[in-house]
Amino acid sequence: MKRPATIEPAKGKLAVLLPGLGAVATTFIAGVALARRNLAAPVGSLTQLATIRLGKRTERRSPKISDFVPLAQLDQLEFGAWDIFEDDALASAEHSHVLRPDHLEAVKDELRAIRPMRGVFYPEFVRRLHGTHVKRGSSKADMVAQLRQDIRTFMRERACDRAVAVWCGSTEVYTHANGVHASIVSFEEALAKSDPSITNSQMYAWALLKERVPFANGSPNLAVDFPAASELAREVRMPIAGKDFKTGQTLMKTIIAPGLKARMLGIHGWYSTNILGNRDGEVLDDPDSFRSKEVSKLSVLDNILQPQLHPELYGDLVHKVRIDYYPPRGDDKEGWDSIDLHGWLGYPMQMKINFLCRDSILAAPIVLDLVLFLDLARRAGLHGMQEWLSFYFKSPMHAPEVNAEHDLFIQHKKLKNTLRWVMGEEPLTHVGNEYYE
Amino acid sequence: MKRPATIEPAKGKLAVLLPGLGAVATTFIAGVALARRNLAAPVGSLTQLATIRLGKRTERRSPKISDFVPLAQLDQLEFGAWDIFEDDALASAEHSHVLRPDHLEAVKDELRAIRPMRGVFYPEFVRRLHGTHVKRGSSKADMVAQLRQDIRTFMRERACDRAVAVWCGSTEVYTHANGVHASIVSFEEALAKSDPSITNSQMYAWALLKERVPFANGSPNLAVDFPAASELAREVRMPIAGKDFKTGQTLMKTIIAPGLKARMLGIHGWYSTNILGNRDGEVLDDPDSFRSKEVSKLSVLDNILQPQLHPELYGDLVHKVRIDYYPPRGDDKEGWDSIDLHGWLGYPMQMKINFLCRDSILAAPIVLDLVLFLDLARRAGLHGMQEWLSFYFKSPMHAPEVNAEHDLFIQHKKLKNTLRWVMGEEPLTHVGNEYYE
Amino acid sequence: MKRPATIEPAKGKLAVLLPGLGAVATTFIAGVALARRNLAAPVGSLTQLATIRLGKRTERRSPKISDFVPLAQLDQLEFGAWDIFEDDALASAEHSHVLRPDHLEAVKDELRAIRPMRGVFYPEFVRRLHGTHVKRGSSKADMVAQLRQDIRTFMRERACDRAVAVWCGSTEVYTHANGVHASIVSFEEALAKSDPSITNSQMYAWALLKERVPFANGSPNLAVDFPAASELAREVRMPIAGKDFKTGQTLMKTIIAPGLKARMLGIHGWYSTNILGNRDGEVLDDPDSFRSKEVSKLSVLDNILQPQLHPELYGDLVHKVRIDYYPPRGDDKEGWDSIDLHGWLGYPMQMKINFLCRDSILAAPIVLDLVLFLDLARRAGLHGMQEWLSFYFKSPMHAPEVNAEHDLFIQHKKLKNTLRWVMGEEPLTHVGNEYYE
Amino acid sequence: MKRPATIEPAKGKLAVLLPGLGAVATTFIAGVALARRNLAAPVGSLTQLATIRLGKRTERRSPKISDFVPLAQLDQLEFGAWDIFEDDALASAEHSHVLRPDHLEAVKDELRAIRPMRGVFYPEFVRRLHGTHVKRGSSKADMVAQLRQDIRTFMRERACDRAVAVWCGSTEVYTHANGVHASIVSFEEALAKSDPSITNSQMYAWALLKERVPFANGSPNLAVDFPAASELAREVRMPIAGKDFKTGQTLMKTIIAPGLKARMLGIHGWYSTNILGNRDGEVLDDPDSFRSKEVSKLSVLDNILQPQLHPELYGDLVHKVRIDYYPPRGDDKEGWDSIDLHGWLGYPMQMKINFLCRDSILAAPIVLDLVLFLDLARRAGLHGMQEWLSFYFKSPMHAPEVNAEHDLFIQHKKLKNTLRWVMGEEPLTHVGNEYYE
Repeated sequence: MKRPATIEPAKGKLAVLLPGLGAVATTFIAGVALARRNLAAPVGSLTQLATIRLGKRTERRSPKISDFVPLAQLDQLEFGAWDIFEDDALASAEHSHVLRPDHLEAVKDELRAIRPMRGVFYPEFVRRLHGTHVKRGSSKADMVAQLRQDIRTFMRERACDRAVAVWCGSTEVYTHANGVHASIVSFEEALAKSDPSITNSQMYAWALLKERVPFANGSPNLAVDFPAASELAREVRMPIAGKDFKTGQTLMKTIIAPGLKARMLGIHGWYSTNILGNRDGEVLDDPDSFRSKEVSKLSVLDNILQPQLHPELYGDLVHKVRIDYYPPRGDDKEGWDSIDLHGWLGYPMQMKINFLCRDSILAAPIVLDLVLFLDLARRAGLHGMQEWLSFYFKSPMHAPEVNAEHDLFIQHKKLKNTLRWVMGEEPLTHVGNEYYE
Repeated sequence: MKRPATIEPAKGKLAVLLPGLGAVATTFIAGVALARRNLAAPVGSLTQLATIRLGKRTERRSPKISDFVPLAQLDQLEFGAWDIFEDDALASAEHSHVLRPDHLEAVKDELRAIRPMRGVFYPEFVRRLHGTHVKRGSSKADMVAQLRQDIRTFMRERACDRAVAVWCGSTEVYTHANGVHASIVSFEEALAKSDPSITNSQMYAWALLKERVPFANGSPNLAVDFPAASELAREVRMPIAGKDFKTGQTLMKTIIAPGLKARMLGIHGWYSTNILGNRDGEVLDDPDSFRSKEVSKLSVLDNILQPQLHPELYGDLVHKVRIDYYPPRGDDKEGWDSIDLHGWLGYPMQMKINFLCRDSILAAPIVLDLVLFLDLARRAGLHGMQEWLSFYFKSPMHAPEVNAEHDLFIQHKKLKNTLRWVMGEEPLTHVGNEYYE
Repeated sequence: MKRPATIEPAKGKLAVLLPGLGAVATTFIAGVALARRNLAAPVGSLTQLATIRLGKRTERRSPKISDFVPLAQLDQLEFGAWDIFEDDALASAEHSHVLRPDHLEAVKDELRAIRPMRGVFYPEFVRRLHGTHVKRGSSKADMVAQLRQDIRTFMRERACDRAVAVWCGSTEVYTHANGVHASIVSFEEALAKSDPSITNSQMYAWALLKERVPFANGSPNLAVDFPAASELAREVRMPIAGKDFKTGQTLMKTIIAPGLKARMLGIHGWYSTNILGNRDGEVLDDPDSFRSKEVSKLSVLDNILQPQLHPELYGDLVHKVRIDYYPPRGDDKEGWDSIDLHGWLGYPMQMKINFLCRDSILAAPIVLDLVLFLDLARRAGLHGMQEWLSFYFKSPMHAPEVNAEHDLFIQHKKLKNTLRWVMGEEPLTHVGNEYYE
Repeated sequence: MKRPATIEPAKGKLAVLLPGLGAVATTFIAGVALARRNLAAPVGSLTQLATIRLGKRTERRSPKISDFVPLAQLDQLEFGAWDIFEDDALASAEHSHVLRPDHLEAVKDELRAIRPMRGVFYPEFVRRLHGTHVKRGSSKADMVAQLRQDIRTFMRERACDRAVAVWCGSTEVYTHANGVHASIVSFEEALAKSDPSITNSQMYAWALLKERVPFANGSPNLAVDFPAASELAREVRMPIAGKDFKTGQTLMKTIIAPGLKARMLGIHGWYSTNILGNRDGEVLDDPDSFRSKEVSKLSVLDNILQPQLHPELYGDLVHKVRIDYYPPRGDDKEGWDSIDLHGWLGYPMQMKINFLCRDSILAAPIVLDLVLFLDLARRAGLHGMQEWLSFYFKSPMHAPEVNAEHDLFIQHKKLKNTLRWVMGEEPLTHVGNEYYE
C-alpha cells in the first residue's frame, strides 16, 4: 500500500448505518448523543480520548489522535438502523437495561426518533429469535435490492455526504464460505437463486458495499469475510474490517497471553467460562450460534503463543471456552479464567481472572472508533481489508499470506504506527538508546 | 549510543557472582545445573527459549535469540556467592522449600560445593535478620577492599575470563541518596569514614564495579542507583542494570495496566494485596523494608497510565499495595488484585486477579538473562545503564531526562529491537501494510 | 432462666432510639418506611420473613416467626436518633450513597422529619471524625442526665409506650474495662468525675438502661459489655445484647468455618482482607479504632474450631485480618478470604472467597430484628444478656462460665429453639428416626 | 426406630469390600495403612478425629466419638476390591497421581498385595471406559451368583467376622427405576432374564445384601436406591446408605446455602462450574453420565432454600451446574461458584467461591466413616436406610414421606444427636439458657 498523498477533508454529514438496533447499537447512539452535550464521556474510544506520541520522548509531543488525523466530528454523525423488531432506539435501549434511566431521559427525544427500517430475516441463521419487523421479497437478490433502496433513501432524506456501516446484529449459526462465495459473479448468481448458503449478514454487507459504504463486522458471522466480498471491496475501493468485537474475556486473553509469552512462561491449560444474560446470551444458547462464537474465541491463543515455535511451552495447551446463558445478570457479563502456567524448571503456578464487565459498554466505543477510522481510511484512499484495525476484533481479517494478529499490544502498535505512517511521521521502535552516552 | 562495530566472542569461563545465596540464588544455580544435563527446562528465560522475528512476516525468519546474538553458554558459567549465613547452596536450597527433593538430589554435589564467602552486614539495613557469617573490618572502605580481594581470588582460582554480578540478597530499609552519593570522590571519602548512609548493597556494587564486573540489582535497594555509581560505571565502561526483579504481582500489573490503557478504559482504583511466607516476607514485615518495596511497587501505574495526559481516566486513581507475611505459604506467593475500572459513559466494571505464583521460580530466569545479557553488553561495548533491560525490573533505571518505562510490552519491544539494532537488523514497527494492495 | 408464664401484648407505640444516624441507621429507617408501604421487601430480617418449623416434619407446620411469637408491627415503630452531625435522615441517607434515588424519593418526607438530637462526643474515642452537633455539659454525669432528658422528652412527645435502643454509631478506639466499670456504684462515681475511661457509647448505654430501655450494641465498643452494665440491666430487668453486627466477612467466616470443622478438615491459614470506602472505613483507618474491630474479628475462629480439642487440625492456624480504607467503593465492601486447608493425610487444598457486599444493606435487617426481639424479650420478662441473639453479632456477649458461641448454625438453632421454648413448643434435635421402621 | 438395647462388640476382622479400585479406593486404603503406622493422619474422618459434646457446656465432657461409641479399629480392617482393570492397588494409586511418592513407598507392600477380583461390566452403563478384567457369565443372575461366591471366598480366606461394602466405582449413565425394581420378586426374575434396566452397580449391591453385607453408595447410581433393594435390606436386616459422596463443590454449596438462608438473604442465581481431569472427569464427559451427576448436584439448593415457603427470596433462582473435563488438573478439582444474592430492599450483592480441592482426598475419609458407622449400625440392630448418614452424601436417601435433608449443619446435628440417642445421652438443643439468671 502506498502512503496517501492527500486525505479528503471530513466535511458534511456522515451517515452511520447499523444493521441491528439492540443493546450495542443503542448504547453507542445514546452515548454519542450524551457526549455531544458533554453529559457523559466517551470512555474507551481512541478517536475521542487517546493521545499519540510523536518523535523522541524528550520532544513531549503527544497530541490527541483527533488533533493529529482528520476525523469526522460527533456532531456530523447521522444514525440509521435496520432491525427485525420494530422498537425505536429508546424502547430498545430501555429493554436492554444497560444505561441508567437518567441517561436515557436526557436523550430520549433523539433516541425515539430513530426507528429501524425493516430487517432481512431468514430465521434459519438465528434460531432463538422470532423477528416480526421484516422485509418480504421474491429472492435474496430482491432483499439486497430493497436494502440498497433503503440506503439511497436514507442518504437523500438526511442529506448525507458519506456513510459507514457497522454490523451490530446477532451471531448467526456457524457456516463456511463455499463456491458461491468465491467471486462477485458466483455470489450475484447465487443471490438471484436465493442460495441457502447466503446469510442475512452477507446480504447487508453486499448491499452496503455496492452502495460504496465501508463496512465493519462486529459479530463472528462471515458477513464480509469471503473472497467475493474482498473482490467487491477492492472494486468499489471501499475499506472493510472485521470480525467480532473484542470485548470482555477475549480482550483480557489477548492482554494476558502476550504478557506470559513475553516472559516465556509456559501454559498447560486455559479454562474460560463466561456467563451472560442478555439477548446475545440467549442467541448463543443455540449450539450452532455458539459454535460461531467458540471458533472465534478459540483461535486467539494459538496465534499469540506460537506453539510451533515453542512446543515445550505451549505444545500441550488445553484451551476450553464456555459460554452460559444466565439470566440473572442481564447485560452484565462475567468471565472467569483459570490459567495453569509453569515457570523455571516446569514448576506450576496458577492465575485466575474474574472480569465483571458489561458487553455493550465495552462494544459501544469500538463502534464509534470503527465508524470514524473507516471513514478516515476511505478519505485517505485505503481500501480492502484494514489490518491496522485488528485491535478491535476477536478474529481479525488478514491477507492470505500472513496469520491473524491477536496480540493486543502488537495490534495497538500497528494501529498507531499506521496513523503515524499515514501522516508522514516516523514510526516508533522503542529502541530509544539516544539518551545513553 | 553508537551501534557496536564488533562484539567480542564469549569465550572462556564467565564468573557469576551473587551477593545473597538464598531461595532465588539457589533456585537459579540448581536450575542451570539441571538444564545443563537436560533434566529440566529453563522456562522463563528469553536467552534460552525465546525466538526473535527478523524481517517481514512472510520471510519466516524467527531464530532463537541465542542463535542470533553471541551469548555465553550455560556450560561456561562458574558460580560464586556471598551470604551472611554459612549454609552451602544445597542446605540453603533445602531450607527454602522451593525445589522438589528429586530435583535437588540430582544436582546435590554441585550445590554442596558452593559455599558462600562471608557477607558484609551492617544490621541496621536488614533488621529482621541476624547474620552469623560476616566479615569484620575497620571501615566500610575496608569492607570494599575485602570484597575486591574475594573477587580477585575467585577469578584466579576458578580461572575465569570475565564476571557478572546480580544482587540476590534481601530488601534493605528505605533510604535516599544524599551528598555522599553524588560523585566517585565523595563516595570514596565517605567509605573511608564509614558514613552511615552507605548501605551493604552499595559496598558490594562498588567493589564489583571497581573490579570491572557488570552489576544488576534484583532488589529495590539503591545498590547502583545513585550518581556516583553511574559515574563509576561509565569510567570503568561497565554496564549496570536495575532495580527490583519484576516477578509476581507487579509483573501482572505491568501486563494488565497497558492493556486497559490501550483501550482507553478508565481506572478509579487498584487494590493489591500480596501474601508470602518466605524470608523475603519476613524481612518485609519490617515497615522500613516494606517502604522500599512499596515505593518500588507503587510507581508502576503512574508511568503506564499517564494521568497527566488523561486526567478524566486516571486522575483520581486510588492505588493501594499491601504485603503481608503469611507463613503458611512458604515460597509460594499469592497476589490478589481488585481493579475498579470504567468504560463508555463512565459505567463501572470490576476485575479481580488471583495469582498463585512462586517468587524464586519467577526470579531465577531473570537472573540468568541478566547475567547473559550484561555479559553481552560488556562485550559489545555498551556501558552505563542498560535501559533495554527494563523488562526485568519493577523500578527500571533510566536517563534523567526521560521517565522509567514500566509497560511490559514497550519494554519487550525495546529489548528485542535493541537486539536487532545491535546486530544490524531492521527494528519492527508492525505497520506491515505491504500485504494489502 | 424460667420459661415466661405470660408475654405482655405488643400494644401501643414502640420508640426506636438510635445513637448514630449514619448509613446503617438511615438504611434501616428508610427500609422500614418502604416496607410499610410495600414498596420494598425487608430482606434479611427473620422477624419479617423467616418461618419456624414446629413438631415433626410430616406435620408440615412452618408458620412465620411473626405469626408464632407476639412481635410489634412495623407500623408501631417511632424513630429517634442522636448524631454528632446535624444532617436529617434524608440528607444523611443521600450522603451515604447506599439507597437508590427512587427509593429515597418515595420516603423523603418521613426521612426529612427525623432530625438528630445533639450527640455526646468526646473526640478522643473517634479520632477521624470532627463532630459539630454536640452536647455541652459540665461532666460525663451531666451528659448522661441530658441524654435521659432527651429520652423522656421523646417518649412523651411521641406518646410511646415502650422503647428499644440500638447503637448504630462509629467504632471507638480500643479500650478495656477497668475498676471504674466494676459496679454501678463505681461507675456512677466515675461519671461524676468525668473519668477518662468512660466512653461515649457507655454514656448512651447507661442513660438508656436507667430509663428502662433495652439496648443492643452494633459496634465493637464496650458500650454495655462491662460488669456494671450487666448489674444495671439485671436491676432494671431490661434485656441487653451485643456486640458488633455480624455483616460481611465475619458472617461468611462463621458460615464456612463450622462447615470445614464439621467435616474435620484441617486449616493452616486464613487470610482475610476487606476493602471499604464509607465513613466506617475512614474511622477504621485510625489504628486504635481498627484494633477494636480486629479483636472482634479475630476471636471468631478459635471458638468455632476449638484448637484445644483438635490441635492436629487447628493448632498451628495463622489467622490474619486486614481492613483497608479504599474510597472507590463507597458503602460497597469487598472481602477476600484465602484459606489454606488440608484433608486426608494432610494434603493441602485452598479456598478463596470474594464477597462483594454492602455494609448497611446487611446491617439494616439486624437492627430491625434486634429491635423487635429485644422488645419481645422485655415483654416476656427475659432480662440481662440475651445469648440467643448471638446470631446477630461478631462478638457475642455471654455468661462468664461459658465461651462466646460464634458458629452461625448453633446460633441459629439457639435462636429458634429459644423461641420454641418461650412458646412451649418442643425444641428440634433432628434425630428424626421415627420414619424408619 | 427403637433405641438399641445393646450393641454387639466390634470384635474380629471386618472385611471392607470395594467395588472399584481407582483413585478413591486406593487413597482410602493407603491412608488407612499410613494411619495405622502413624505416618499420616486420617484428616476428614469423624470416626477418627471428631469429638462429641455431652451434657451441659460447663460439664466439659467432649470425648472422641471413637471413645463414645464402640467402633471397629483400623487394625481390624481387611481390604478387598473388584475392578474392571487388573492393576493392583499400588499400580492404580500410582496412575491416579493423588498421593506423593514417599507416601506410596511407605505402604507399597500392603498395596501391592491387594489385587482386584474381576468386575461385572456391561459397557452400556459406563461408555468411556473399556474394561479388560471382567467376569463372563450367562446372565445377570449368574453375575450376581459369581459376586456372591467372591464374597464368601474372601470372608473365608481372610477369616473375617463381618463385612461392609462401599461403592467406589464410576458414575453410570442416568437411569430410572422401573417395574423391574419394584420388589424382590420382580428384580430377581429380571436378573434371570438379564433385563437391560439392571445396572452394574445394582448387581453388586444385590449380591452384597444377599450375603448380609451393609452397603453404602458413593456414586449417583441407583445401586441401592430402588424399592426392591430397600425391601431386601429390611428382610436381611442390614443397613444401607447413599448416595454420591459429598466432596468439593456440593459440599461448599451445602455449607453456604444454609448460611445465607439462615440470614434470610435472597438468591437470584447460582452458577457453578467445576473442572477436573481424572478418570471421573473423563467418565462425566459422556453427557449421559453427566446427567446422573447433574441431577444429583442440582437437587441440593431447592431442599435447603425451600422456595415454596420463601418465594420472594428463592422463587426465581436460576441454578446452573457445569462440569468440564480438563486434563491439566489431574485429580485436583477446581470449583468456581458465582452467587447473585440480595439483601435488605432487594439490593444486589455477589459472592464468588474458588475451591482448589482434591477429589480423592475429600472422599477417602468418607469411605472410612461409612465403613465404621455402617458396621456400628449393623451391630446396633439399625437396618434399612440410615438417614443419619446423610451428612456424607450429595443426594441422601430418605423415607418417602419426608424430603432429603441437604443442609450440612442439620445433617451434622442429626448424625451427632443420633449417636447420643443410641448411647442414651441427651440430644443437644442449644437452648442453653441455664446460665442466665
